[in-house]
Amino acid sequence: MARLLKAKKEHIGLSPHEIYFRGEKKSDTVLLEVIDYDSENLDEFEAKSVKEVVKFNETSSTTWLNIYGLHDVKIMDEIANQFELDSLILADVMNTHARPKIQEYDNCIFISLKMLQYDEKQNRISSENIVILIMEHILLSFQEKTGDVFDPLRERVRKSKRRIRNAGTDYLAFALMDIIFDNYNYIISIIGEKIESLEVHLLNNAHEATLEEINNFKKEVIYLHKSIKPCREIVIELLKTDSELLEDSVYVHFEDLKNNLNQAIESLESYREILSDQLMIYHTTISSKLNDIIKFLTVFSVIFIPLTFIAGVYGTNFDVLPELHYKYSYFIMLGVMLALAVFMIFYFKKKKWF
Amino acid sequence: MARLLKAKKEHIGLSPHEIYFRGEKKSDTVLLEVIDYDSENLDEFEAKSVKEVVKFNETSSTTWLNIYGLHDVKIMDEIANQFELDSLILADVMNTHARPKIQEYDNCIFISLKMLQYDEKQNRISSENIVILIMEHILLSFQEKTGDVFDPLRERVRKSKRRIRNAGTDYLAFALMDIIFDNYNYIISIIGEKIESLEVHLLNNAHEATLEEINNFKKEVIYLHKSIKPCREIVIELLKTDSELLEDSVYVHFEDLKNNLNQAIESLESYREILSDQLMIYHTTISSKLNDIIKFLTVFSVIFIPLTFIAGVYGTNFDVLPELHYKYSYFIMLGVMLALAVFMIFYFKKKKWF
Amino acid sequence: MARLLKAKKEHIGLSPHEIYFRGEKKSDTVLLEVIDYDSENLDEFEAKSVKEVVKFNETSSTTWLNIYGLHDVKIMDEIANQFELDSLILADVMNTHARPKIQEYDNCIFISLKMLQYDEKQNRISSENIVILIMEHILLSFQEKTGDVFDPLRERVRKSKRRIRNAGTDYLAFALMDIIFDNYNYIISIIGEKIESLEVHLLNNAHEATLEEINNFKKEVIYLHKSIKPCREIVIELLKTDSELLEDSVYVHFEDLKNNLNQAIESLESYREILSDQLMIYHTTISSKLNDIIKFLTVFSVIFIPLTFIAGVYGTNFDVLPELHYKYSYFIMLGVMLALAVFMIFYFKKKKWF
Amino acid sequence: MARLLKAKKEHIGLSPHEIYFRGEKKSDTVLLEVIDYDSENLDEFEAKSVKEVVKFNETSSTTWLNIYGLHDVKIMDEIANQFELDSLILADVMNTHARPKIQEYDNCIFISLKMLQYDEKQNRISSENIVILIMEHILLSFQEKTGDVFDPLRERVRKSKRRIRNAGTDYLAFALMDIIFDNYNYIISIIGEKIESLEVHLLNNAHEATLEEINNFKKEVIYLHKSIKPCREIVIELLKTDSELLEDSVYVHFEDLKNNLNQAIESLESYREILSDQLMIYHTTISSKLNDIIKFLTVFSVIFIPLTFIAGVYGTNFDVLPELHYKYSYFIMLGVMLALAVFMIFYFKKKKWF
Amino acid sequence: MARLLKAKKEHIGLSPHEIYFRGEKKSDTVLLEVIDYDSENLDEFEAKSVKEVVKFNETSSTTWLNIYGLHDVKIMDEIANQFELDSLILADVMNTHARPKIQEYDNCIFISLKMLQYDEKQNRISSENIVILIMEHILLSFQEKTGDVFDPLRERVRKSKRRIRNAGTDYLAFALMDIIFDNYNYIISIIGEKIESLEVHLLNNAHEATLEEINNFKKEVIYLHKSIKPCREIVIELLKTDSELLEDSVYVHFEDLKNNLNQAIESLESYREILSDQLMIYHTTISSKLNDIIKFLTVFSVIFIPLTFIAGVYGTNFDVLPELHYKYSYFIMLGVMLALAVFMIFYFKKKKWF
Repeated sequence: MARLLKAKKEHIGLSPHEIYFRGEKKSDTVLLEVIDYDSENLDEFEAKSVKEVVKFNETSSTTWLNIYGLHDVKIMDEIANQFELDSLILADVMNTHARPKIQEYDNCIFISLKMLQYDEKQNRISSENIVILIMEHILLSFQEKTGDVFDPLRERVRKSKRRIRNAGTDYLAFALMDIIFDNYNYIISIIGEKIESLEVHLLNNAHEATLEEINNFKKEVIYLHKSIKPCREIVIELLKTDSELLEDSVYVHFEDLKNNLNQAIESLESYREILSDQLMIYHTTISSKLNDIIKFLTVFSVIFIPLTFIAGVYGTNFDVLPELHYKYSYFIMLGVMLALAVFMIFYFKKKKWF
Repeated sequence: MARLLKAKKEHIGLSPHEIYFRGEKKSDTVLLEVIDYDSENLDEFEAKSVKEVVKFNETSSTTWLNIYGLHDVKIMDEIANQFELDSLILADVMNTHARPKIQEYDNCIFISLKMLQYDEKQNRISSENIVILIMEHILLSFQEKTGDVFDPLRERVRKSKRRIRNAGTDYLAFALMDIIFDNYNYIISIIGEKIESLEVHLLNNAHEATLEEINNFKKEVIYLHKSIKPCREIVIELLKTDSELLEDSVYVHFEDLKNNLNQAIESLESYREILSDQLMIYHTTISSKLNDIIKFLTVFSVIFIPLTFIAGVYGTNFDVLPELHYKYSYFIMLGVMLALAVFMIFYFKKKKWF
Repeated sequence: MARLLKAKKEHIGLSPHEIYFRGEKKSDTVLLEVIDYDSENLDEFEAKSVKEVVKFNETSSTTWLNIYGLHDVKIMDEIANQFELDSLILADVMNTHARPKIQEYDNCIFISLKMLQYDEKQNRISSENIVILIMEHILLSFQEKTGDVFDPLRERVRKSKRRIRNAGTDYLAFALMDIIFDNYNYIISIIGEKIESLEVHLLNNAHEATLEEINNFKKEVIYLHKSIKPCREIVIELLKTDSELLEDSVYVHFEDLKNNLNQAIESLESYREILSDQLMIYHTTISSKLNDIIKFLTVFSVIFIPLTFIAGVYGTNFDVLPELHYKYSYFIMLGVMLALAVFMIFYFKKKKWF
Repeated sequence: MARLLKAKKEHIGLSPHEIYFRGEKKSDTVLLEVIDYDSENLDEFEAKSVKEVVKFNETSSTTWLNIYGLHDVKIMDEIANQFELDSLILADVMNTHARPKIQEYDNCIFISLKMLQYDEKQNRISSENIVILIMEHILLSFQEKTGDVFDPLRERVRKSKRRIRNAGTDYLAFALMDIIFDNYNYIISIIGEKIESLEVHLLNNAHEATLEEINNFKKEVIYLHKSIKPCREIVIELLKTDSELLEDSVYVHFEDLKNNLNQAIESLESYREILSDQLMIYHTTISSKLNDIIKFLTVFSVIFIPLTFIAGVYGTNFDVLPELHYKYSYFIMLGVMLALAVFMIFYFKKKKWF
Repeated sequence: MARLLKAKKEHIGLSPHEIYFRGEKKSDTVLLEVIDYDSENLDEFEAKSVKEVVKFNETSSTTWLNIYGLHDVKIMDEIANQFELDSLILADVMNTHARPKIQEYDNCIFISLKMLQYDEKQNRISSENIVILIMEHILLSFQEKTGDVFDPLRERVRKSKRRIRNAGTDYLAFALMDIIFDNYNYIISIIGEKIESLEVHLLNNAHEATLEEINNFKKEVIYLHKSIKPCREIVIELLKTDSELLEDSVYVHFEDLKNNLNQAIESLESYREILSDQLMIYHTTISSKLNDIIKFLTVFSVIFIPLTFIAGVYGTNFDVLPELHYKYSYFIMLGVMLALAVFMIFYFKKKKWF
């Protein structure tokens, strides 16, 4: 699990306008992937410089510039200059530890989000900061490192007759967020399945690994909740935004995003409660097992304690101990012992101790 | 219990307009049941195609088209075309895992809900997605599979003098929701009865099956809460809606639905708390039993430990051990042992250990 | 304790307008008690039919018609007809399991409430549905069965100089609600006293009956909370209502009702928390007692274990065991045993184990 | 601790206008203390009757009439008449069990509050009802019994150059509330200190008295929270009030009261959580100690069990038992026993059991 | 950890206008540090008196007067006079125990905050009251004692080309708050790291120090939450403020502060939950260990109890005890004992008890 909050001493007191990378470098190079499209044409290429792309903002086609790698201050500066963006925006892009947020500017809408993915191999959630900048004819998306998460969208864009080819940057932004939020639901779905499969072990076969798993799932659920909750605020903010950059037709899709996020958040809250119950049940099962162990010990001890005592009595060396001298004393003693043991066993059987 | 959230990897990145079945197929064929009625006449038949039904939207009578089975993309496409519905609507109809929601369109109001039913035999809650589309003279309801849940309503429509025969699609929509929400209350009522009957076992006769039942009820209550809460949002949204499709007289019924849902939700929250208390009480009872077992062991051990010790002392083989040689030593020893045991028993009785 | 939610399968799908008794019949006959009064005159009698009463609605005096018994569909129909009431109102009157609610109609205000009373003998809370219908000159109150709960109010009305004699149906409605809500506070006060008296047992003398009582009080508090919370909504709704049926001077009294209900709800929430703490303390006390028992067992065992071992050693039959043959061996052994025991006792005293 | 809610059966159904003492009589006589002041003059005396004071309401000076003792219906009636107050107001003054509230009337603002004080000797919180009536030139304050809690304020008024001498009844009301709320913070501060000092015992030296103290503090915190929360509502209501009786300059002081109450409430909520944690920690410490005790018992038992067994074997009386007859058998046995014991001790040391 | 709430008896009833130091004196002298700057010039010096500084309020340059030490009533009086500030403001400055707040006055905005710092050596959080007074051309900041926390900001101001040199007191106030809030996040980040490192010990190696640490972190998180929450209210208040002292361009920065505080608060809430879980897991681990110990004791006891019993039987002194006289009896007994022990060991192995 990623850390809940990261803050470094050396970042305290920095100017908010300072374009300075505040994160962990996850990629070495910076890649500029461009897709420019309208209903008729599609142009897809890798740009060498920002300059190459900026001209597309004047054409009426929709251009999607996806930037992999955030650490390069120079390129960020260039982007700020070429697209006439406030330095605050690029500073925010480079601050990968910040809380997801939305900010409306004169010429763009800034949205930062966490992209979460479930790494099946390592069995953990990885987190990546994603920034989406909606401008009139161009949309910039920033990713910390290369990845294939937006591939289904690229595919949709490439297939020429899709609705997305007629739509603008607002719809593209929706589609990007939709993929990110769908991934949230997918992760929750996987974790939910695992939590439910824990249940089987819980009641019959609890051991410490189960406890560790409950604890891990709990932390993952807390982490997911903390990551997803700000997204709902962002979508609600978007729904209230009255920007020229957003067409009326896109709001119905934002409503859907809100509904999806609500479902995600409510599911997480349910899982949170289920996990707390599981913890309590695990604890109760442990106590229940203790009872079984102690019952076993008690039954065993209580049966033998009086028998051993009787043997002890007849092991004493008194000069006068009449029972020792009868012919059948020993056998009578064995008989009494057997009778006592049988009685005890019945007594415990009746008490349902075993 | 159904899963709290289902999401599939292959659905990530799909266009929201794509009419694509995202659920589990629960029925093989698709059935179109039509009831067309006004205060005078009633016409009830099974339609072969959507075309047959669409003409009723122009007559002033109220038409209820109930569609069983959601998996058939073709029929959905036809419905979209014939009724001039936004493709988003039908895509939503086919997404059975989505959160219940309401969406107002120009020519219709879209409402999706979860139909929950209690399967007495299997002792579990089954969930089905229901979509209601309110149009001017026709109401479409979509069910995942055939079932008799709306039969009481059909009966009411058939009996000619009922108020419902004079009302429009808005009242019909209310009646459908009323049945769905009444089923919520009915399920809660059944589960509540079972939870209350658990109580008896809890204090006197707790065993692991009780723990498992508490856990299951807790999960069911969480599941119900998660399913029912969005319905209240939907009804509140309906009450705020100012659509031409809803007549003034129907709002008082929506108020009643809200009140019913409030009762359901508050009951669930109460049961949730009761179940948490039961879990705690179960745990406490387990601890309390442990005390009883340990007390039993302690009483038994503590009585015999000194007796066995005394016997041990007189079992030693010292050359000089004067007590061994008196005539009544053995009997005195037995007497002392008896006295000790009796004293111990009184001591424990006074301490109320048994 | 009454059930938290009751719903019957046969009521699913009934029309909301259907005047149909949905409850348990608590009374055999129906009684119509009438008090008609103004500042000068008072007329009190038992009516034989609804017709007899309806004429009072045209006089300027205030009339209070109290109806015991809700199960008689005929009388309800007659009431609906005579007072020109919407059929929904009477259907709601007969649905005794519904959540408390308020509904404003053109000619009346409908208020349904739960009347709770503490049955000191059976040590349980009984619940009864009360409906108040405020009309211009007449107030209808419906009770499930006969009872003396409103007697203090009748007494106040009879005493001629009371302020109530000058007031209208709105003030009468307030007075009725005031009695109902005062009863809530009275019940909470009784339960509170009992909860506080539990405390004494909790720390010194906890046994399973205490656990059962905590559990019962908890459920009663949950039940009360669930019953009282909707009342606050009703009073808040009344305060917002701008009906001609309510005079300005009555709002200050509604404010007082709200304040009373707030106090009730806050007290319940406090008791809820106190009971949860008591449960935890009970559990902790159980664990604490276990420690005492185990300490006792340990002290006893640990003192005798080495002594018995020593005796065992000198009970062996080795040919060569020099200690056996000294004159004072036995007494030395006894001395060593005593010293060991004393040492152990001091050791445990120092460890504060007894 | 005072009771959370008090309600008496005989008060049910009383008219709200009835001037009737609903509380416990805490004082025998009624005292009327008057301070009349403006920036120049100060007049302080004990009034014999209400009549003596009422004339001050017409002068422009500020008059503070403090009344000790609420049980005397006659004096209350006289106050109502002389000051032309609604009978509701005086009835409310005499209802000392009611929830704190504010009510605006035409000629006055009614504020009732709980005065809480920490009785250091008895180690408990005492509660007293305080009512403040703000009129144009006179302020009435009602206390249940005599006390010195407002003495610092009297002192401030007496010192002639204080700001308070130029201000009206609104500022005087603020000053009274300020003292009451400062006492809340003082009590919380004392209890907080005690809670924090509990901590030391909790981890090292927990015994049942600690548990009892945690429980008592918890209940006191709940009681304080319940008493203080309505005060915040009152102050917020005051801030929203647009009465002629309140000058603009006093609102900034009400803001301060709100801030103080927020701090009090937030501290109480923090202490609530801390106490819950302490309860859990106490419980865990108890369990942890049990482990230590059981470890001790186990170590002791496990060391001696095999030794006693060996002695038992050589205490048997078989005709043929070769080991008995070797010269060094006994010493070898002792050696083996010693070796076993040492081994066991090392084993447990390694397991860190002691 | 600092105390959650401090209130002294002697402060009850003081006038809010009284300039009186209500705190702990943390510094002996009072220092007045001045930085006066505009885009061109920078002047940095230590002022001897307030008079020296007040003239800067008339120049258009921005002046930052930082005052170390709050206990000196004379200097505070001088500040109040020179800057024509309400006496309330300075009284508030000297009340270091008050809750953080914001208050708008005619000529200034008053903001009080808690400066929290993590003392790595002592492993605890230290708290200091900071007051910021925003006036037109001068900003006053009050600190309880000298410190280097604002040094990065001073550095930024000194470097002449920074944006801050062109901005007014509003931006300076933002920069100060930004540093304070960044410190919150930094502290949370450190504590978060420590909490996560606890985890490792929790499951494998729990001892009482772990419990103590969990408890301490929990209290620190509660303390942080209580300190930071009012800051969010302050920033939200600032965002709503429509003061002439704040330029439009600064609001976007306040938005950022709000986002930072939201992240801090959400992280604290997550850590709170994680710590509660850890407490529960610690408790469960303790119970789990008890099971292991008791299993060990049981296995050991149960193996030896029957063996010791058998030896006891053959240690009896009956005249007739045939087994004693066979040649191989002793060896057979040993064999039987061995067989029994081996059987037991297998039995427990199968039960997975060791």
